Amino acid sequence: MVAIQIERELLAVEKQLNDIVCSEVDLLQDASQHIIVSGGKRVRPRLTMLAYLAAGGEDLSAVIPLAAAVELVHTATLVHDDINDHSLTRRGKITVHARWGRTFALLTGDYLFSKVYELMAPYGPQYNILMARACVELVEGETLQAAAAKAGTVDQETYKRIISLKTASLFEASARMGALLAGGDEQTVAALGEYACNLGLTFQIVDDVLDIMGDPETMGKPTGNDLVQGAGAIMVQNGKKTNHQAAAATAEDPIQAMMARLRESGAVEVARMQAQEIARRARKALEQLPPSPARDELRILVDLVVDRDQ
Amino acid sequence: MVAIQIERELLAVEKQLNDIVCSEVDLLQDASQHIIVSGGKRVRPRLTMLAYLAAGGEDLSAVIPLAAAVELVHTATLVHDDINDHSLTRRGKITVHARWGRTFALLTGDYLFSKVYELMAPYGPQYNILMARACVELVEGETLQAAAAKAGTVDQETYKRIISLKTASLFEASARMGALLAGGDEQTVAALGEYACNLGLTFQIVDDVLDIMGDPETMGKPTGNDLVQGAGAIMVQNGKKTNHQAAAATAEDPIQAMMARLRESGAVEVARMQAQEIARRARKALEQLPPSPARDELRILVDLVVDRDQ
Repeated sequence: MVAIQIERELLAVEKQLNDIVCSEVDLLQDASQHIIVSGGKRVRPRLTMLAYLAAGGEDLSAVIPLAAAVELVHTATLVHDDINDHSLTRRGKITVHARWGRTFALLTGDYLFSKVYELMAPYGPQYNILMARACVELVEGETLQAAAAKAGTVDQETYKRIISLKTASLFEASARMGALLAGGDEQTVAALGEYACNLGLTFQIVDDVLDIMGDPETMGKPTGNDLVQGAGAIMVQNGKKTNHQAAAATAEDPIQAMMARLRESGAVEVARMQAQEIARRARKALEQLPPSPARDELRILVDLVVDRDQ
Repeated sequence: MVAIQIERELLAVEKQLNDIVCSEVDLLQDASQHIIVSGGKRVRPRLTMLAYLAAGGEDLSAVIPLAAAVELVHTATLVHDDINDHSLTRRGKITVHARWGRTFALLTGDYLFSKVYELMAPYGPQYNILMARACVELVEGETLQAAAAKAGTVDQETYKRIISLKTASLFEASARMGALLAGGDEQTVAALGEYACNLGLTFQIVDDVLDIMGDPETMGKPTGNDLVQGAGAIMVQNGKKTNHQAAAATAEDPIQAMMARLRESGAVEVARMQAQEIARRARKALEQLPPSPARDELRILVDLVVDRDQ
């Protein structure tokens, strides 16, 4: 029942995303819709909607603009990431960067970000302060990641800081905003925030594992890419600092070689165990909430994040 | 008196700008402060403060965060512009792009933009809707300009649309927000908005003229740069479509040759006359306001914008 309701309202989120990027400047509209219609898991808007319901919200349509806004932040960062990563494909389609060139990809990312701002503007300070914080932290996380990639090393502490800033922060804001809009009390908002933060950490570790282990065809993008960019979790999950650039420079097909080495080293298994442990914390946070169909769905969402293959 | 007051509060704006970009990620803080301390004319924050006073505001310190926010939007776009324009110097100093590289310049621009959002978050929807609109239009203007540069042609109508979106829109929002914070009535806010919109158009035309005619040493950046990027006003101010890329390709030092040709063609004089006419409209809008020292300063600001040599 709740699952069906969420899927129906996700269509409204898609419509909102498409509508908000309408522009008299055709290129911005085309490039924005190109990345939006190419899909994605829409984890963040699901989170906003389920948090809204779990906190006692009754009119799911009220939360659509917030759900669209959190997805749009994520979309804007993807467009800019693809410039920095020189990525050619994303979600099985050509990237904005590859199709429209760097200048227009940069401007499309800026446009999407300014549209987030437009979606959020009618809401009060409470929501905007949460969202602004998440945006700042996301950029800080991306910057730390790029710096680690450039340095060629990343220790476990830095890795945790990166995934907390670049992923968990927006997950947490997504849930908190939904819970706030439902009129949830402080404890409810905090519990859903804690849940979402741990879900975000789990999500990112699994993402990094899939970058090493996943099937490029299932993923819709080349694997090993995050490894090149210094995002690979696995190298640090075994607790050792790794100079992957140096390693990469010596092998014949360095990224493939490193991926094979990581698969064989058992580090992937360690990362998976860590993801399971953090996922357990996410489930535990849910216990602070009264039972409800939405709470059940949030629990299922953890399982989906842990067990996904793309 | 008002002029001294504004200069004093501009120091508070500088402090706010420096404080807001403090980050535990050193690189973001260093790169942000690098562009902030390199200065600039600070026209937009002046505008916010003077509009506040002209609309009857009495506590200028209340308007500092808004004044800082409008300058920070401008700063963020400069960092991204310099990536797209491959600019090496800005305000007489090395650009963020040239010093930290493209990836970190892109992230620094994103960071500054998210800090705008953080500054604005505590304000109500009225302010955020104005600012969001200005940000969206700014990106639309930049995109139209980049598209015109790529196509190698720009007609007068498109030129007007570009400068209206990329410059006048933020000028107008800067003044409107100041007037709103002062509790100005609808007519006052509209008059100051009309003034600022025309000031912005004047500012941009003069900017484009200076790009052709200005002394690179006074300007603190190479001249002819906007011409390469398709921003040159002059080519269109004489009403003729100009294919400057084709022209540029034939000369030995194509940009210098084109600059000389434009200087000799009289087109610069036409642009200067247009700037004077739009400046007149800005002054006229001020007549809707009751006389005040701040109104006098706004009138002086028009003269400064028209007569500036950098």
